[in-house]
Amino acid sequence: MRVGVFGASGYAGLELLRLLLRHPKLEISVVTSEQRAGQPVGEAFPALRGRLDLAFDAAEPERLASRMDLAFTALPHAASAPTVAVLREAGVAVADISADYRLRDRAVYEAWYGPHGHPELFGKAVYGLPELYRDQLAGAQLVACPGCYPTSAVLPLVPFLRAGLVETAGIVIDSKSGVSGAGRKLDAGFLFAELDENAKAYKVADHRHAPEIEQEASVAAGKPVQVTFVPHLLPTVRGILTAVYCRPTQPVSTARALALLQEAYADEFFVRVLPEGETPTLASVRGSNFCDVAAIADERNGTLVLLSSLDNLVKGAAGQAIQCANLMAGFPETEGLLETAFLP
Amino acid sequence: MRVGVFGASGYAGLELLRLLLRHPKLEISVVTSEQRAGQPVGEAFPALRGRLDLAFDAAEPERLASRMDLAFTALPHAASAPTVAVLREAGVAVADISADYRLRDRAVYEAWYGPHGHPELFGKAVYGLPELYRDQLAGAQLVACPGCYPTSAVLPLVPFLRAGLVETAGIVIDSKSGVSGAGRKLDAGFLFAELDENAKAYKVADHRHAPEIEQEASVAAGKPVQVTFVPHLLPTVRGILTAVYCRPTQPVSTARALALLQEAYADEFFVRVLPEGETPTLASVRGSNFCDVAAIADERNGTLVLLSSLDNLVKGAAGQAIQCANLMAGFPETEGLLETAFLP
Amino acid sequence: MRVGVFGASGYAGLELLRLLLRHPKLEISVVTSEQRAGQPVGEAFPALRGRLDLAFDAAEPERLASRMDLAFTALPHAASAPTVAVLREAGVAVADISADYRLRDRAVYEAWYGPHGHPELFGKAVYGLPELYRDQLAGAQLVACPGCYPTSAVLPLVPFLRAGLVETAGIVIDSKSGVSGAGRKLDAGFLFAELDENAKAYKVADHRHAPEIEQEASVAAGKPVQVTFVPHLLPTVRGILTAVYCRPTQPVSTARALALLQEAYADEFFVRVLPEGETPTLASVRGSNFCDVAAIADERNGTLVLLSSLDNLVKGAAGQAIQCANLMAGFPETEGLLETAFLP
Amino acid sequence: MRVGVFGASGYAGLELLRLLLRHPKLEISVVTSEQRAGQPVGEAFPALRGRLDLAFDAAEPERLASRMDLAFTALPHAASAPTVAVLREAGVAVADISADYRLRDRAVYEAWYGPHGHPELFGKAVYGLPELYRDQLAGAQLVACPGCYPTSAVLPLVPFLRAGLVETAGIVIDSKSGVSGAGRKLDAGFLFAELDENAKAYKVADHRHAPEIEQEASVAAGKPVQVTFVPHLLPTVRGILTAVYCRPTQPVSTARALALLQEAYADEFFVRVLPEGETPTLASVRGSNFCDVAAIADERNGTLVLLSSLDNLVKGAAGQAIQCANLMAGFPETEGLLETAFLP
Repeated sequence: MRVGVFGASGYAGLELLRLLLRHPKLEISVVTSEQRAGQPVGEAFPALRGRLDLAFDAAEPERLASRMDLAFTALPHAASAPTVAVLREAGVAVADISADYRLRDRAVYEAWYGPHGHPELFGKAVYGLPELYRDQLAGAQLVACPGCYPTSAVLPLVPFLRAGLVETAGIVIDSKSGVSGAGRKLDAGFLFAELDENAKAYKVADHRHAPEIEQEASVAAGKPVQVTFVPHLLPTVRGILTAVYCRPTQPVSTARALALLQEAYADEFFVRVLPEGETPTLASVRGSNFCDVAAIADERNGTLVLLSSLDNLVKGAAGQAIQCANLMAGFPETEGLLETAFLP
Repeated sequence: MRVGVFGASGYAGLELLRLLLRHPKLEISVVTSEQRAGQPVGEAFPALRGRLDLAFDAAEPERLASRMDLAFTALPHAASAPTVAVLREAGVAVADISADYRLRDRAVYEAWYGPHGHPELFGKAVYGLPELYRDQLAGAQLVACPGCYPTSAVLPLVPFLRAGLVETAGIVIDSKSGVSGAGRKLDAGFLFAELDENAKAYKVADHRHAPEIEQEASVAAGKPVQVTFVPHLLPTVRGILTAVYCRPTQPVSTARALALLQEAYADEFFVRVLPEGETPTLASVRGSNFCDVAAIADERNGTLVLLSSLDNLVKGAAGQAIQCANLMAGFPETEGLLETAFLP
Repeated sequence: MRVGVFGASGYAGLELLRLLLRHPKLEISVVTSEQRAGQPVGEAFPALRGRLDLAFDAAEPERLASRMDLAFTALPHAASAPTVAVLREAGVAVADISADYRLRDRAVYEAWYGPHGHPELFGKAVYGLPELYRDQLAGAQLVACPGCYPTSAVLPLVPFLRAGLVETAGIVIDSKSGVSGAGRKLDAGFLFAELDENAKAYKVADHRHAPEIEQEASVAAGKPVQVTFVPHLLPTVRGILTAVYCRPTQPVSTARALALLQEAYADEFFVRVLPEGETPTLASVRGSNFCDVAAIADERNGTLVLLSSLDNLVKGAAGQAIQCANLMAGFPETEGLLETAFLP
Repeated sequence: MRVGVFGASGYAGLELLRLLLRHPKLEISVVTSEQRAGQPVGEAFPALRGRLDLAFDAAEPERLASRMDLAFTALPHAASAPTVAVLREAGVAVADISADYRLRDRAVYEAWYGPHGHPELFGKAVYGLPELYRDQLAGAQLVACPGCYPTSAVLPLVPFLRAGLVETAGIVIDSKSGVSGAGRKLDAGFLFAELDENAKAYKVADHRHAPEIEQEASVAAGKPVQVTFVPHLLPTVRGILTAVYCRPTQPVSTARALALLQEAYADEFFVRVLPEGETPTLASVRGSNFCDVAAIADERNGTLVLLSSLDNLVKGAAGQAIQCANLMAGFPETEGLLETAFLP
């Protein structure tokens, strides 16, 4: 199956290339980059020299659509929607990594992102979290791949909301992310000289991933859920570590909380529920499509702590998109994704 | 004034040396190290070559007491108490950086740390947080310098508890610390190869600094306060970033929360209340004795977010100990501590 | 084909596991670790949870030999030789990652490493650098995989020595390595707190990899070659960057030097000769089995600069061992090794 | 004495601020920044909040000259010369941190940097390496502070050239630098996501600091010296580690080489000659004005290895400029510079 990658020179796009080069059933036929159109991939990115014999195309979906069966669109939000529309019109299946079709409520989208260029596709996109929407993803033609932070928060939280075990008010999500989550932005704060040995919170209770988390939390709870979402920037390239703080609606021990997670994810290859006493680390998931989750009940203080780790570029972006593409195409879900994290 | 540093070859001890070498009124007369007794300081630590012409002594307080007027004890907990007892007996003023005299309730101490060797000094130590206990520190003879995490949590939280503006139940403290906070421990998890590009939560709701935070929070609130304290390990050498999540007892805006902090710390040199829109960073305080604090109200979700940053080895240990020593000796409080963080 | 990994809990051993888990024709049947015997792999190393369903065995080659067709021995030098001897006796093919059989001159071995336990196998091992010894590696039963530094130095240097284009005297090799090259040693200098933002030269002109480089350089030159080898420790986990400084025997331009490298490695998949103007980076090879090489002639000063980069755990250890194993077993040489470096 | 800092928002300028804030005899009266003119320093750089109560001025030397007795010009090359000319015209003493007056041969300057705007001041500037030019620096009115790489190479090399102990041909200098040496450049290669866990050589035998090294090496040798200079980029913020490879003109042991360095620098506070067996590290000098040097003779191969470490922003820029200013003003040379490196 021929696949195109739009926005292939950004971090998520490059990670798609790295992973797709290992995929036995997907063949990269087109890669686009506005800034590098015409340049051979291996010249622009020496890591890819000898691995991929293609040049970047300009992102012209009309012209390129016939050269692919499925497209990954790793473009900035707002830039993605028109490309997606053209590709869908041409019959190309699309796994969109941008934010353009993640939110199902157009008003919420526009409140956080501004006007939407192709609202007609709202409601036609399946939310690409296979652990929650596997059935709808099978054979889907348009998938909106989740944000990195939402994936890390929703996976540990949803089982508790579904079971009614935690209050829907007052949920706090404290996430810590490596800098690749921001893309290849030439911002002074992302320079090595300013980020090494540094860390900070940013967009406190004001990050665009909050409404996405709330959307999925509300579905799970069956009623509106609001969260206080506080992202932090870490001096790492990859990885998201998330702590969700919530209050049980009834006494819950650590053992019971873990049992609930184990039950929820017993059949999920990419979600690993850690045994009691262990906490998720960035290192254990780096480069892999796993999301590790854990739970600790602080019964003394009436607080339940849910923890997760994932690689923002894999399970938080490119890997999850391929997991979705496997479902869209009817391939085994883990195809091309059986990677083990570096150690060390 | 002659000062001795017990445990001078640990990270807090070395930081004391770095800072004391800049202090115009304190002269290092004795440095001890069990492992390096007899070795010249500059030979053991090349960074100190040409800066300090002393050799390490074995930690024998009886023999050494007459060579100092004030001692900093940077020893492991339990090892500190007997040294402190001997020094006090000999009339030496002591700023203790260990945990041995931080908790005022012996039962709480023993529940978290085990039996205490010199409980007779319980209640004779002043808690060395000058912003809260300045009056008692003036002329004190025994000071228990706070833990690094408690300093980072107590400074932003106390004004709100004193004002009755936040609920005393359900407080969550999510802290992120550089690895020097653990001391020079030969633990595989602290190796560069395993910590770089890594991060994790540890001792979730089970860290010894929790009761210390609760002690000071309870004093501020005038009633028992419990907290859920979740420390994280960051891939940085220095620095603690803390987020305190609590629920206002009445509607509180960001502006009002910041005004309360500004009022509380208007006369405090080492606590900088950041303007609205700015969040504390590790870089801005690294190497300095500052603690930067901020507040953001998430009114939509009924959560108040308090943030702080400090250098765990300075305001969280050695710098704060010198700040206390300045008060004990009647020197200006900022003497020797006017350092600016590296940038970059 | 069933393979065993002796010393599977060290860094080279773990990297073997990561890579072997992707290999379509090699199946891990045994993993040993003295310290972790009996422990399930995924419990000891969370990154491997869900990936490898084995427990560590104690390193008892007599007992284990029948459970494998080929063994990778990733043991410390001196510890490897007896294990290799037992395995060979039992008819198991061995790719040895230790230093025990790299040197062909026993006197040189013993001068640098001390007495050798099984000198009878000296001369029976093929030096496992496929780019130089491919023919002998095909079907070999005992392979001594090269050291990481030697691989990085020998690959760019050998073509020039073979062509007689550089003087054999006065060669200087300045290498910079990430800390994983030292293994999981609990040395204070390898702690994150002491290595981050740090770097230094060590074992200057006194490192055990020098005689190994000299052995292969001498073969290429057809006469004895001595080198000044200066390794440095970098604050990275992985990677070796090497600069070889030598003097041309006749005027050599950058273009001619690059042409010589291109000619030498035209058919080598894992050696990438960079175009003029580009220099090798650690990032471009991290996690992959590539060695990138470049050459710059400083004609003004009569010096030829040869540069290389590789991942010390892949092309410098585990990846190269698998490349050898592929040749030993008659598999395609790149089998299981087509990995692309992370970007970012 | 009132001092102005031109280009105060760059890395060298900010480091000047950090160090000047500790100087008992120099008072910062003016700070300029084109990009931040009008902005309070503490608002632009939170690390300086509470430390320096000034706003940035636009860099208008005519207008500002009367407000300072001495100026530090930390501007890009070419931009510095006109500012220096105006300041000198107005009678302000100048320590120039740019490259504009380091080279004494105008033809060499123009070959590497292009046309020079104020060649009339060529020959009026003293090269600001106090260890070599102390006498001329006393009372000087215009000082050209050395580049960071040249300082690191010249200090260990000059004693050997002066003594005629090393050949003047074939000298190789392999330097490794933290990224702050490049200034706050918004270059993708300097992003944390692309530099962490990375390293590379750049501008091989083609860096502008080569002619500066050659100038001072030639003075020391009494005849023209050429060097092959190969700089590398390290994943650290600060620090330069340099290895100089040269060939002795007669047999030289490590002991004799170290004795020569000790003799040369016996009276130099800021140059520390390490004892045999120790090598310079970045950590030992970070934040301090020290340059650590060492020598190892590889007698077997006829090569002498000279090593050095320094902090590129201190001894390599701002600290050395203050050391010069102390000499220009007749203050003790170490005034304000007695800082100890962080450990850890």
